[in-house]
Amino acid sequence: MRELGRRARAAARRVALASTEDKNAALRAMAARIRAEADAILAANEQDLAEAKAKGQPASFIDRLMLNPERLEAIAAAVESIADLPDPVGRVLARFERPNGLEIERVATPLGVVGVIFESRPNVTADAGALCLKAGNAAILRTGSESFRTSLAIAKAMGEGLEQAGLPADAIRLVPTRDRAAVGAMLSGLDGNIDVIVPRGGKSLVARVQEEARVPVFAHLEGICHVFVHGAADLEMAKNIVLNAKMRRTGVCGSAETLLVDRACADTHLKPLVTMLLDAGCAVRGDEAVQVADPRVTPATEEDWRTEYLDAIISVRVVDGLDEAIRHIESYGSHHTDSIVTDDVATAERFLAEVDSAIVLHNASTQFADGGEFGFGAEIGIATGRMHARGPVGVEQLTSFKYRIRGAGQTRP
Amino acid sequence: MRELGRRARAAARRVALASTEDKNAALRAMAARIRAEADAILAANEQDLAEAKAKGQPASFIDRLMLNPERLEAIAAAVESIADLPDPVGRVLARFERPNGLEIERVATPLGVVGVIFESRPNVTADAGALCLKAGNAAILRTGSESFRTSLAIAKAMGEGLEQAGLPADAIRLVPTRDRAAVGAMLSGLDGNIDVIVPRGGKSLVARVQEEARVPVFAHLEGICHVFVHGAADLEMAKNIVLNAKMRRTGVCGSAETLLVDRACADTHLKPLVTMLLDAGCAVRGDEAVQVADPRVTPATEEDWRTEYLDAIISVRVVDGLDEAIRHIESYGSHHTDSIVTDDVATAERFLAEVDSAIVLHNASTQFADGGEFGFGAEIGIATGRMHARGPVGVEQLTSFKYRIRGAGQTRP
Repeated sequence: MRELGRRARAAARRVALASTEDKNAALRAMAARIRAEADAILAANEQDLAEAKAKGQPASFIDRLMLNPERLEAIAAAVESIADLPDPVGRVLARFERPNGLEIERVATPLGVVGVIFESRPNVTADAGALCLKAGNAAILRTGSESFRTSLAIAKAMGEGLEQAGLPADAIRLVPTRDRAAVGAMLSGLDGNIDVIVPRGGKSLVARVQEEARVPVFAHLEGICHVFVHGAADLEMAKNIVLNAKMRRTGVCGSAETLLVDRACADTHLKPLVTMLLDAGCAVRGDEAVQVADPRVTPATEEDWRTEYLDAIISVRVVDGLDEAIRHIESYGSHHTDSIVTDDVATAERFLAEVDSAIVLHNASTQFADGGEFGFGAEIGIATGRMHARGPVGVEQLTSFKYRIRGAGQTRP
Repeated sequence: MRELGRRARAAARRVALASTEDKNAALRAMAARIRAEADAILAANEQDLAEAKAKGQPASFIDRLMLNPERLEAIAAAVESIADLPDPVGRVLARFERPNGLEIERVATPLGVVGVIFESRPNVTADAGALCLKAGNAAILRTGSESFRTSLAIAKAMGEGLEQAGLPADAIRLVPTRDRAAVGAMLSGLDGNIDVIVPRGGKSLVARVQEEARVPVFAHLEGICHVFVHGAADLEMAKNIVLNAKMRRTGVCGSAETLLVDRACADTHLKPLVTMLLDAGCAVRGDEAVQVADPRVTPATEEDWRTEYLDAIISVRVVDGLDEAIRHIESYGSHHTDSIVTDDVATAERFLAEVDSAIVLHNASTQFADGGEFGFGAEIGIATGRMHARGPVGVEQLTSFKYRIRGAGQTRP
């Protein structure tokens, strides 16, 4: 593992200085190698699948692990699409001239070495490696044990693509062992050779990484997202947004888990919203006022307000106006994504200013919490921390910066 | 300590939402309270000084600790000057509209709670507290034991200023004990109630903080800054820049510690540069070629290339062109501030691109590595890490950001 770290650091230096053309050529070559080695990758996946089935893994797990020609083509196409993104390295973020004539530029630079720890989803090997490379970083990838053979075959194709473009294969390396101690080594930072860790997976993985990592982490532990239907909300708009925020996809981190309804409009809005959700197949857990609205509502406990269901379940509460809504969100939320529905602009602006979440919305669904929807292209995850990256972590968020100063012989008085 | 953390978190929420006017009113009220309580602060300083002298602290230590009316007025004026800086919170960092009509803004927000750990310099209590407040953050300040009474008196004045402006005194609190265990508690993050630690002091303090902190750290361990005199350098410009970079002030982190001279100009430039430094009272430690240039040069050891002298000493080496200069800087430097002197623009651009330091300069002195010289106003320190803040850490670098999205009822397909 230590050797892996050293080699990644050396490779990071080379890809940091690589031209946009070379990086994009490498990404396209990687996609081509993934396509060329489809048989070997799918054969490795067969072995992983056989082992996972023998271990009695559930059908949903097997489905996430399974590759077929269509899925593998989607993986190759995703790598290619990252070549089409603008290069985030070298962007001039600010430029100013000082009275003494010094010209100062703040310019985007790579972060260094990114460690990505993920569960058994074969596509992450390609996605994460490609995003890191685009931002001029080296990547050390640790896959879940069950997709080890598949990920190794994909990583081999990526390394070949790098070398075809004259870049070091060490810039994207899969940890070459299923040994669980490797995760601990990555969390310790590999002698300073990992600059940031990105965990991709369930809450227990993210919690372990956040607890144990000795290097910065870009992650969100959970997405307890709220929709607040304010007293001045249009009912039809509120129904559309709430239904979409909860039910479009229930398993994504941007799905709504709690609906807050302003007491000022509860008489007119609460019952239609609750009935709509129930009729759409969503279980509703509510406070007393909500239970009155429909007999199918079950009581919500204190625990419900803190729960990310990731399922067709929602907790619903009546609150006394904006201030109580904000207090609820700040007390129980996870600073991920929260939305207000209202026709009152001043109220909306207070919500947007005072809710301390990575993403705050006015009159839009929480399911827009996604790098693609922001126009960032692919993302490596969504971060709820306040350090460095926040919200969707795309290629721009995988960069740092430095100051370049051009003078004409200036000395400091 | 845990209660201190909880109270800081609550105060952070309030100052995060405070208006620019209220924050500036608080800063001006703090300056006024510092002036009004000058007698008490100076009396506390007398006690600190008496104890430090009794302990046999050296004269340089006593001088840093000592306040007098002029120095205290400078502290008050520095707090006032922070009121005059633009408010970094609420700046719109990016704004874009998506094809579906969603308007997305990236807007600057406070970081939260900043922990500042510093040695016995009374002014840091005021400077650091004021900078954190300007950026909408709460600050927990830990002073060196020897300036405890002075810092407590200054912090008391700052808290009164906050309250006069209707803001919580808990937004700037000095750790109210000299107990050394308090530092460990801060480094652990106080139950998640410290978001970032800024150490201000010598190398041993910074090393301990970087080693033990469980939260992000903005710091530089050392400033091993280089000046590379390239073959195409103008000799007079090189002499001016080298003399300034080394000798203007030798004790600051941006002072040059190593001079690299291109073999291509060694015949003409090396001796004048070395003689100038020696004549200015700077000891020169050099490789063999440098020793030949002047009999007063002593041999440099491998250790010299890694040493931050912070004194009138410089190590000098002849290198084979740009590539060897960059290799030397990347091998021995501290990624702080490095400068090239050359009339060749292409060479300068390669240096600016390839040297991986927070600040890289062309034809200018390394002593410009300072937030004031960048026009950032006061700084809380200089960071050499690549996460979040890099280079001078002024009020802008003490902020995070979030995404505000304004819609008209959009749902995600």
